[in-house]
Amino acid sequence: MGDKGVEPHRRVRLNGAPNSKECAMAVEDSVAQDQLRAFIERIERMEEEKAAIAADIKEIYAEAKGNGFDTKILRKIVTIRKQDANERAEQEAILELYMAALGMVEAPPEN
Amino acid sequence: MGDKGVEPHRRVRLNGAPNSKECAMAVEDSVAQDQLRAFIERIERMEEEKAAIAADIKEIYAEAKGNGFDTKILRKIVTIRKQDANERAEQEAILELYMAALGMVEAPPEN
Amino acid sequence: MGDKGVEPHRRVRLNGAPNSKECAMAVEDSVAQDQLRAFIERIERMEEEKAAIAADIKEIYAEAKGNGFDTKILRKIVTIRKQDANERAEQEAILELYMAALGMVEAPPEN
Amino acid sequence: MGDKGVEPHRRVRLNGAPNSKECAMAVEDSVAQDQLRAFIERIERMEEEKAAIAADIKEIYAEAKGNGFDTKILRKIVTIRKQDANERAEQEAILELYMAALGMVEAPPEN
Repeated sequence: MGDKGVEPHRRVRLNGAPNSKECAMAVEDSVAQDQLRAFIERIERMEEEKAAIAADIKEIYAEAKGNGFDTKILRKIVTIRKQDANERAEQEAILELYMAALGMVEAPPEN
Repeated sequence: MGDKGVEPHRRVRLNGAPNSKECAMAVEDSVAQDQLRAFIERIERMEEEKAAIAADIKEIYAEAKGNGFDTKILRKIVTIRKQDANERAEQEAILELYMAALGMVEAPPEN
Repeated sequence: MGDKGVEPHRRVRLNGAPNSKECAMAVEDSVAQDQLRAFIERIERMEEEKAAIAADIKEIYAEAKGNGFDTKILRKIVTIRKQDANERAEQEAILELYMAALGMVEAPPEN
Repeated sequence: MGDKGVEPHRRVRLNGAPNSKECAMAVEDSVAQDQLRAFIERIERMEEEKAAIAADIKEIYAEAKGNGFDTKILRKIVTIRKQDANERAEQEAILELYMAALGMVEAPPEN
Protein backbone atom coordinates (compact mmCIF):
# COMPACT_ATOMS: atom_id res chain seq x y z
CA MET A 1 0.00 0.00 0.00
CA GLY A 2 3.00 2.31 -0.60
CA ASP A 3 3.18 5.03 -3.23
CA LYS A 4 3.14 2.50 -5.97
CA GLY A 5 -0.04 0.95 -4.65
CA VAL A 6 -1.90 4.19 -4.51
CA GLU A 7 -0.99 5.29 -7.99
CA PRO A 8 -3.39 3.13 -10.06
CA HIS A 9 -6.33 4.52 -8.13
CA ARG A 10 -5.37 8.04 -9.09
CA ARG A 11 -4.85 6.87 -12.66
CA VAL A 12 -8.34 5.44 -12.81
CA ARG A 13 -9.81 8.56 -11.32
CA LEU A 14 -7.98 10.65 -13.91
CA ASN A 15 -9.44 8.47 -16.59
CA GLY A 16 -11.46 10.74 -18.85
CA ALA A 17 -9.83 13.91 -17.55
CA PRO A 18 -8.65 16.38 -20.21
CA ASN A 19 -5.04 15.29 -20.30
CA SER A 20 -5.85 11.62 -20.26
CA LYS A 21 -5.57 11.65 -24.01
CA GLU A 22 -1.88 12.37 -23.83
CA CYS A 23 0.05 9.30 -24.71
CA ALA A 24 1.69 8.53 -21.35
CA MET A 25 -1.52 8.97 -19.43
CA ALA A 26 -3.42 6.83 -21.88
CA VAL A 27 -0.97 4.00 -21.33
CA GLU A 28 -1.25 4.34 -17.57
CA ASP A 29 -5.04 4.43 -17.82
CA SER A 30 -4.99 1.32 -19.88
CA VAL A 31 -2.89 -0.44 -17.24
CA ALA A 32 -5.31 0.62 -14.52
CA GLN A 33 -8.23 -0.51 -16.65
CA ASP A 34 -6.68 -3.91 -17.17
CA GLN A 35 -5.99 -4.19 -13.45
CA LEU A 36 -9.53 -3.18 -12.59
CA ARG A 37 -10.97 -5.68 -15.03
CA ALA A 38 -8.69 -8.42 -13.67
CA PHE A 39 -9.75 -7.76 -10.08
CA ILE A 40 -13.44 -7.75 -10.98
CA GLU A 41 -13.12 -10.96 -12.98
CA ARG A 42 -11.21 -12.73 -10.21
CA ILE A 43 -13.85 -11.70 -7.69
CA GLU A 44 -16.64 -12.82 -9.97
CA ARG A 45 -15.04 -16.22 -10.49
CA MET A 46 -14.69 -16.70 -6.73
CA GLU A 47 -18.23 -15.48 -6.12
CA GLU A 48 -19.46 -18.06 -8.60
CA GLU A 49 -17.55 -20.80 -6.82
CA LYS A 50 -18.95 -19.64 -3.49
CA ALA A 51 -22.47 -19.64 -4.88
CA ALA A 52 -21.95 -23.17 -6.24
CA ILE A 53 -20.84 -24.41 -2.82
CA ALA A 54 -23.76 -22.66 -1.15
CA ALA A 55 -26.05 -24.47 -3.60
CA ASP A 56 -24.35 -27.77 -2.72
CA ILE A 57 -24.90 -27.15 0.99
CA LYS A 58 -28.54 -26.39 0.34
CA GLU A 59 -28.78 -29.67 -1.53
CA ILE A 60 -27.26 -31.66 1.33
CA TYR A 61 -29.83 -30.16 3.69
CA ALA A 62 -32.58 -31.09 1.23
CA GLU A 63 -31.23 -34.64 1.09
CA ALA A 64 -31.11 -34.81 4.88
CA LYS A 65 -34.69 -33.57 5.01
CA GLY A 66 -35.66 -36.27 2.52
CA ASN A 67 -34.13 -38.75 4.94
CA GLY A 68 -36.32 -37.52 7.77
CA PHE A 69 -33.97 -35.15 9.55
CA ASP A 70 -35.07 -31.76 10.85
CA THR A 71 -32.95 -29.27 8.90
CA LYS A 72 -33.53 -26.43 11.35
CA ILE A 73 -32.01 -28.58 14.06
CA LEU A 74 -29.19 -29.68 11.75
CA ARG A 75 -28.30 -26.04 11.19
CA LYS A 76 -28.30 -25.50 14.93
CA ILE A 77 -26.02 -28.51 15.42
CA VAL A 78 -23.55 -27.12 12.87
CA THR A 79 -23.55 -23.79 14.72
CA ILE A 80 -23.12 -25.44 18.12
CA ARG A 81 -20.20 -27.56 16.90
CA LYS A 82 -18.39 -24.36 15.92
CA GLN A 83 -18.77 -22.98 19.45
CA ASP A 84 -16.62 -23.73 22.43
CA ALA A 85 -18.39 -26.49 24.39
CA ASN A 86 -17.59 -25.03 27.81
CA GLU A 87 -18.71 -21.58 26.82
CA ARG A 88 -21.93 -22.95 25.41
CA ALA A 89 -22.59 -24.98 28.58
CA GLU A 90 -22.11 -21.85 30.67
CA GLN A 91 -24.47 -19.86 28.45
CA GLU A 92 -27.10 -22.59 28.71
CA ALA A 93 -26.76 -22.59 32.51
CA ILE A 94 -27.29 -18.82 32.74
CA LEU A 95 -30.23 -19.09 30.35
CA GLU A 96 -31.83 -21.73 32.53
CA LEU A 97 -31.32 -19.63 35.66
CA TYR A 98 -32.91 -16.60 34.05
CA MET A 99 -35.80 -18.68 32.72
CA ALA A 100 -36.32 -20.17 36.17
CA ALA A 101 -36.22 -16.71 37.76
CA LEU A 102 -38.91 -15.63 35.31
CA GLY A 103 -41.01 -18.72 35.96
CA MET A 104 -40.54 -19.91 32.41
CA VAL A 105 -39.15 -23.27 33.58
CA GLU A 106 -38.85 -25.04 36.86
CA ALA A 107 -35.73 -24.11 38.81
CA PRO A 108 -32.75 -26.27 37.82
CA PRO A 109 -31.95 -29.06 40.31
CA GLU A 110 -29.51 -28.19 43.08
CA ASN A 111 -26.59 -30.49 42.43
CA MET B 1 -39.17 -38.27 0.31
CA GLY B 2 -41.54 -41.22 0.48
CA ASP B 3 -42.11 -43.46 3.48
CA LYS B 4 -38.59 -44.67 3.35
CA GLY B 5 -37.30 -41.12 3.62
CA VAL B 6 -39.30 -40.35 6.70
CA GLU B 7 -38.29 -43.45 8.62
CA PRO B 8 -34.82 -42.46 9.80
CA HIS B 9 -36.23 -39.32 11.36
CA ARG B 10 -38.61 -41.36 13.50
CA ARG B 11 -35.77 -43.67 14.32
CA VAL B 12 -33.66 -40.82 15.58
CA ARG B 13 -36.51 -39.42 17.57
CA LEU B 14 -37.09 -42.80 19.17
CA ASN B 15 -33.45 -42.96 20.05
CA GLY B 16 -33.31 -43.29 23.82
CA ALA B 17 -36.96 -44.28 24.17
CA PRO B 18 -37.68 -47.38 26.31
CA ASN B 19 -37.89 -49.90 23.49
CA SER B 20 -34.87 -48.54 21.70
CA LYS B 21 -32.79 -51.07 23.54
CA GLU B 22 -34.38 -53.90 21.67
CA CYS B 23 -31.93 -55.27 19.16
CA ALA B 24 -33.69 -54.31 15.92
CA MET B 25 -34.31 -50.80 17.10
CA ALA B 26 -30.74 -50.42 18.19
CA VAL B 27 -29.52 -51.37 14.75
CA GLU B 28 -31.90 -48.89 13.13
CA ASP B 29 -30.80 -46.21 15.55
CA SER B 30 -27.23 -46.91 14.69
CA VAL B 31 -27.99 -46.51 10.98
CA ALA B 32 -29.74 -43.21 11.67
CA GLN B 33 -26.82 -42.07 13.79
CA ASP B 34 -24.34 -42.85 11.03
CA GLN B 35 -26.51 -41.04 8.53
CA LEU B 36 -26.83 -38.03 10.80
CA ARG B 37 -23.09 -37.91 11.37
CA ALA B 38 -22.43 -38.23 7.62
CA PHE B 39 -24.78 -35.35 6.80
CA ILE B 40 -23.25 -33.10 9.45
CA GLU B 41 -19.72 -33.89 8.32
CA ARG B 42 -20.52 -33.29 4.66
CA ILE B 43 -22.09 -29.94 5.55
CA GLU B 44 -19.13 -28.99 7.70
CA ARG B 45 -16.67 -29.80 4.93
CA MET B 46 -18.61 -27.66 2.47
CA GLU B 47 -18.96 -24.85 4.99
CA GLU B 48 -15.19 -24.89 5.43
CA GLU B 49 -14.68 -24.67 1.68
CA LYS B 50 -17.16 -21.82 1.49
CA ALA B 51 -15.38 -19.99 4.31
CA ALA B 52 -12.03 -20.47 2.54
CA ILE B 53 -13.42 -18.95 -0.66
CA ALA B 54 -14.96 -16.07 1.27
CA ALA B 55 -11.51 -15.46 2.78
CA ASP B 56 -9.98 -15.52 -0.71
CA ILE B 57 -12.51 -12.96 -1.93
CA LYS B 58 -11.71 -10.74 1.03
CA GLU B 59 -8.05 -11.01 0.12
CA ILE B 60 -8.65 -9.99 -3.49
CA TYR B 61 -10.50 -6.92 -2.27
CA ALA B 62 -7.59 -6.13 0.06
CA GLU B 63 -5.17 -6.52 -2.83
CA ALA B 64 -7.32 -4.24 -5.01
CA LYS B 65 -7.37 -1.69 -2.20
CA GLY B 66 -3.60 -1.94 -1.99
CA ASN B 67 -3.55 -1.07 -5.68
CA GLY B 68 -5.57 2.06 -5.07
CA PHE B 69 -9.05 0.88 -5.95
CA ASP B 70 -12.11 1.78 -3.89
CA THR B 71 -13.42 -1.54 -2.59
CA LYS B 72 -16.89 -0.20 -1.77
CA ILE B 73 -17.26 0.77 -5.41
CA LEU B 74 -15.81 -2.56 -6.56
CA ARG B 75 -18.49 -4.35 -4.55
CA LYS B 76 -21.11 -2.17 -6.16
CA ILE B 77 -19.71 -2.95 -9.61
CA VAL B 78 -19.93 -6.69 -8.90
CA THR B 79 -23.56 -6.26 -7.82
CA ILE B 80 -24.43 -4.15 -10.86
CA ARG B 81 -22.88 -6.67 -13.25
CA LYS B 82 -25.21 -9.31 -11.84
CA GLN B 83 -28.25 -7.17 -12.62
CA ASP B 84 -30.01 -6.81 -15.92
CA ALA B 85 -28.60 -3.67 -17.57
CA ASN B 86 -31.94 -2.49 -18.94
CA GLU B 87 -33.69 -2.99 -15.66
CA ARG B 88 -30.97 -1.11 -13.85
CA ALA B 89 -31.13 1.77 -16.35
CA GLU B 90 -34.88 2.00 -15.82
CA GLN B 91 -34.48 2.01 -12.04
CA GLU B 92 -31.87 4.75 -12.28
CA ALA B 93 -34.20 6.83 -14.47
CA ILE B 94 -37.07 6.54 -11.97
CA LEU B 95 -34.69 7.38 -9.13
CA GLU B 96 -33.55 10.50 -10.93
CA LEU B 97 -37.14 11.55 -11.58
CA TYR B 98 -38.07 11.13 -7.93
CA MET B 99 -34.96 12.96 -6.81
CA ALA B 100 -35.72 15.80 -9.21
CA ALA B 101 -39.32 15.96 -7.98
CA LEU B 102 -37.98 16.27 -4.42
CA GLY B 103 -35.47 18.93 -5.42
CA MET B 104 -32.57 16.62 -4.55
CA VAL B 105 -31.08 17.03 -8.03
CA GLU B 106 -31.75 19.23 -11.02
CA ALA B 107 -34.45 17.89 -13.29
CA PRO B 108 -33.03 15.51 -15.89
CA PRO B 109 -32.73 17.05 -19.37
CA GLU B 110 -35.71 16.63 -21.66
CA ASN B 111 -34.33 14.59 -24.48
CA MET C 1 -55.02 0.49 -6.35
CA GLY C 2 -57.61 1.27 -9.02
CA ASP C 3 -57.08 3.53 -12.03
CA LYS C 4 -56.85 6.52 -9.82
CA GLY C 5 -54.11 4.92 -7.77
CA VAL C 6 -51.95 4.15 -10.73
CA GLU C 7 -52.18 7.62 -12.27
CA PRO C 8 -49.78 9.54 -10.03
CA HIS C 9 -47.04 7.07 -10.79
CA ARG C 10 -47.40 7.70 -14.49
CA ARG C 11 -47.56 11.41 -13.81
CA VAL C 12 -44.28 11.32 -11.95
CA ARG C 13 -42.67 9.21 -14.61
CA LEU C 14 -43.88 11.65 -17.25
CA ASN C 15 -42.37 14.44 -15.26
CA GLY C 16 -39.73 15.97 -17.50
CA ALA C 17 -41.16 14.44 -20.67
CA PRO C 18 -41.62 16.83 -23.62
CA ASN C 19 -45.26 17.61 -23.02
CA SER C 20 -44.87 18.03 -19.29
CA LYS C 21 -44.61 21.73 -19.82
CA GLU C 22 -48.17 21.94 -20.95
CA CYS C 23 -50.28 23.46 -18.25
CA ALA C 24 -52.50 20.50 -17.34
CA MET C 25 -49.53 18.19 -17.10
CA ALA C 26 -47.63 20.64 -14.96
CA VAL C 27 -50.50 20.76 -12.48
CA GLU C 28 -50.69 16.98 -12.36
CA ASP C 29 -46.94 16.80 -11.92
CA SER C 30 -47.13 19.22 -9.07
CA VAL C 31 -49.77 17.08 -7.35
CA ALA C 32 -47.62 13.99 -7.77
CA GLN C 33 -44.60 15.86 -6.45
CA ASP C 34 -46.49 16.96 -3.35
CA GLN C 35 -47.71 13.41 -2.83
CA LEU C 36 -44.22 12.03 -3.24
CA ARG C 37 -42.79 14.54 -0.79
CA ALA C 38 -45.57 13.79 1.71
CA PHE C 39 -44.92 10.04 1.56
CA ILE C 40 -41.17 10.48 1.97
CA GLU C 41 -41.62 12.83 4.91
CA ARG C 42 -44.10 10.53 6.63
CA ILE C 43 -41.72 7.61 6.23
CA GLU C 44 -38.80 9.66 7.51
CA ARG C 45 -40.73 10.73 10.60
CA MET C 46 -41.66 7.12 11.36
CA GLU C 47 -38.12 5.94 10.72
CA GLU C 48 -36.88 8.53 13.20
CA GLU C 49 -39.35 7.30 15.82
CA LYS C 50 -38.28 3.73 15.18
CA ALA C 51 -34.64 4.68 15.54
CA ALA C 52 -35.42 6.47 18.81
CA ILE C 53 -37.13 3.37 20.20
CA ALA C 54 -34.26 1.18 19.04
CA ALA C 55 -31.92 3.51 20.93
CA ASP C 56 -34.13 3.23 24.02
CA ILE C 57 -34.01 -0.57 23.85
CA LYS C 58 -30.24 -0.46 23.53
CA GLU C 59 -30.18 1.73 26.63
CA ILE C 60 -32.30 -0.68 28.64
CA TYR C 61 -29.91 -3.48 27.75
CA ALA C 62 -26.98 -1.28 28.83
CA GLU C 63 -28.75 -0.57 32.11
CA ALA C 64 -29.40 -4.29 32.63
CA LYS C 65 -25.75 -4.98 31.92
CA GLY C 66 -24.81 -2.33 34.48
CA ASN C 67 -26.95 -4.26 36.96
CA GLY C 68 -25.01 -7.44 36.30
CA PHE C 69 -27.26 -9.19 33.81
CA ASP C 70 -25.93 -10.97 30.75
CA THR C 71 -27.43 -9.09 27.79
CA LYS C 72 -26.82 -11.87 25.30
CA ILE C 73 -28.95 -14.14 27.47
CA LEU C 74 -31.56 -11.40 27.96
CA ARG C 75 -31.90 -11.15 24.18
CA LYS C 76 -32.32 -14.90 23.99
CA ILE C 77 -34.99 -14.78 26.70
CA VAL C 78 -36.92 -12.13 24.75
CA THR C 79 -36.75 -14.31 21.64
CA ILE C 80 -37.83 -17.43 23.52
CA ARG C 81 -40.80 -15.65 25.09
CA LYS C 82 -42.05 -14.81 21.59
CA GLN C 83 -41.98 -18.49 20.63
CA ASP C 84 -44.60 -21.06 21.37
CA ALA C 85 -43.46 -22.90 24.51
CA ASN C 86 -44.52 -26.34 23.31
CA GLU C 87 -42.89 -25.89 19.96
CA ARG C 88 -39.68 -24.75 21.62
CA ALA C 89 -39.71 -27.72 24.00
CA GLU C 90 -40.10 -30.06 21.06
CA GLN C 91 -37.23 -28.38 19.19
CA GLU C 92 -35.01 -28.67 22.26
CA ALA C 93 -35.86 -32.36 22.57
CA ILE C 94 -34.92 -33.06 18.96
CA LEU C 95 -31.74 -31.04 19.38
CA GLU C 96 -30.78 -33.10 22.41
CA LEU C 97 -31.47 -36.35 20.57
CA TYR C 98 -29.32 -35.30 17.63
CA MET C 99 -26.56 -34.13 19.95
CA ALA C 100 -26.69 -37.42 21.82
CA ALA C 101 -26.60 -39.35 18.53
CA LEU C 102 -23.48 -37.39 17.59
CA GLY C 103 -21.88 -37.97 20.98
CA MET C 104 -21.98 -34.24 21.74
CA VAL C 105 -23.88 -34.86 24.99
CA GLU C 106 -24.82 -37.89 27.04
CA ALA C 107 -28.02 -39.50 25.91
CA PRO C 108 -31.07 -37.94 27.56
CA PRO C 109 -32.48 -40.02 30.42
CA GLU C 110 -35.16 -42.53 29.51
CA ASN C 111 -38.13 -41.33 31.46
CA MET D 1 -21.31 -0.45 36.74
CA GLY D 2 -19.54 -0.46 40.09
CA ASP D 3 -19.62 -3.24 42.65
CA LYS D 4 -23.25 -2.63 43.33
CA GLY D 5 -24.06 -3.11 39.67
CA VAL D 6 -22.34 -6.43 39.45
CA GLU D 7 -23.94 -7.95 42.53
CA PRO D 8 -27.39 -8.78 41.20
CA HIS D 9 -25.85 -10.79 38.41
CA ARG D 10 -24.00 -12.96 40.90
CA ARG D 11 -27.17 -13.25 42.93
CA VAL D 12 -29.10 -14.51 39.96
CA ARG D 13 -26.38 -16.94 39.10
CA LEU D 14 -26.38 -18.24 42.65
CA ASN D 15 -30.11 -18.70 42.46
CA GLY D 16 -30.71 -22.38 43.02
CA ALA D 17 -27.30 -22.98 44.58
CA PRO D 18 -27.27 -24.90 47.91
CA ASN D 19 -27.18 -21.89 50.22
CA SER D 20 -29.78 -19.97 48.26
CA LYS D 21 -32.40 -21.27 50.62
CA GLU D 22 -30.96 -19.32 53.47
CA CYS D 23 -33.14 -16.38 54.25
CA ALA D 24 -30.80 -13.53 53.27
CA MET D 25 -29.96 -15.13 49.97
CA ALA D 26 -33.60 -15.73 49.22
CA VAL D 27 -34.37 -12.06 49.68
CA GLU D 28 -31.49 -11.06 47.43
CA ASP D 29 -32.60 -13.56 44.83
CA SER D 30 -36.08 -12.16 44.95
CA VAL D 31 -34.75 -8.65 44.33
CA ALA D 32 -32.70 -9.89 41.37
CA GLN D 33 -35.72 -11.75 40.04
CA ASP D 34 -37.89 -8.66 40.21
CA GLN D 35 -35.19 -6.66 38.49
CA LEU D 36 -34.80 -9.26 35.78
CA ARG D 37 -38.54 -9.39 35.20
CA ALA D 38 -38.73 -5.58 35.06
CA PHE D 39 -35.95 -5.36 32.48
CA ILE D 40 -37.52 -8.05 30.30
CA GLU D 41 -40.94 -6.43 30.47
CA ARG D 42 -39.57 -2.99 29.63
CA ILE D 43 -37.73 -4.42 26.64
CA GLU D 44 -40.81 -6.30 25.50
CA ARG D 45 -42.96 -3.17 25.69
CA MET D 46 -40.45 -1.22 23.62
CA GLU D 47 -40.09 -4.07 21.13
CA GLU D 48 -43.86 -4.04 20.69
CA GLU D 49 -43.83 -0.31 20.04
CA LYS D 50 -41.01 -0.73 17.55
CA ALA D 51 -42.91 -3.49 15.77
CA ALA D 52 -46.02 -1.29 15.61
CA ILE D 53 -44.02 1.53 14.00
CA ALA D 54 -42.41 -0.88 11.56
CA ALA D 55 -45.92 -2.02 10.61
CA ASP D 56 -46.97 1.61 10.12
CA ILE D 57 -43.99 2.23 7.84
CA LYS D 58 -44.87 -0.84 5.81
CA GLU D 59 -48.40 0.53 5.50
CA ILE D 60 -47.19 3.90 4.23
CA TYR D 61 -45.15 2.14 1.57
CA ALA D 62 -48.22 0.11 0.61
CA GLU D 63 -50.26 3.30 0.38
CA ALA D 64 -47.55 4.92 -1.77
CA LYS D 65 -47.56 1.87 -4.01
CA GLY D 66 -51.35 2.14 -4.27
CA ASN D 67 -50.78 5.70 -5.49
CA GLY D 68 -48.48 4.52 -8.23
CA PHE D 69 -45.08 5.09 -6.66
CA ASP D 70 -42.24 2.58 -6.95
CA THR D 71 -41.54 1.51 -3.37
CA LYS D 72 -38.10 0.13 -4.12
CA ILE D 73 -37.09 3.57 -5.37
CA LEU D 74 -38.79 5.24 -2.39
CA ARG D 75 -36.65 3.14 -0.08
CA LYS D 76 -33.57 4.16 -2.01
CA ILE D 77 -34.57 7.82 -1.76
CA VAL D 78 -34.92 7.50 2.02
CA THR D 79 -31.45 5.94 2.20
CA ILE D 80 -29.91 8.59 -0.04
CA ARG D 81 -31.42 11.43 1.99
CA LYS D 82 -29.66 10.06 5.07
CA GLN D 83 -26.29 10.20 3.29
CA ASP D 84 -24.04 13.19 2.87
CA ALA D 85 -24.82 14.66 -0.57
CA ASN D 86 -21.20 15.46 -1.42
CA GLU D 87 -19.98 12.06 -0.37
CA ARG D 88 -22.68 10.41 -2.44
CA ALA D 89 -21.83 12.54 -5.48
CA GLU D 90 -18.18 11.52 -5.16
CA GLN D 91 -19.09 7.85 -4.87
CA GLU D 92 -21.29 8.09 -7.94
CA ALA D 93 -18.45 9.74 -9.88
CA ILE D 94 -16.01 6.95 -8.97
CA LEU D 95 -18.63 4.35 -9.84
CA GLU D 96 -19.13 5.91 -13.25
CA LEU D 97 -15.37 6.00 -13.86
CA TYR D 98 -15.01 2.34 -12.98
CA MET D 99 -18.01 1.41 -15.09
CA ALA D 100 -16.57 3.36 -18.03
CA ALA D 101 -13.18 1.69 -17.56
CA LEU D 102 -14.95 -1.66 -17.72
CA GLY D 103 -16.94 -0.68 -20.77
CA MET D 104 -20.19 -0.92 -18.83
CA VAL D 105 -21.14 2.67 -19.75
CA GLU D 106 -19.80 5.27 -22.12
CA ALA D 107 -17.00 7.32 -20.64
CA PRO D 108 -18.33 10.35 -18.71
CA PRO D 109 -18.00 13.62 -20.63
CA GLU D 110 -14.79 15.55 -20.11
CA ASN D 111 -16.00 18.74 -18.51
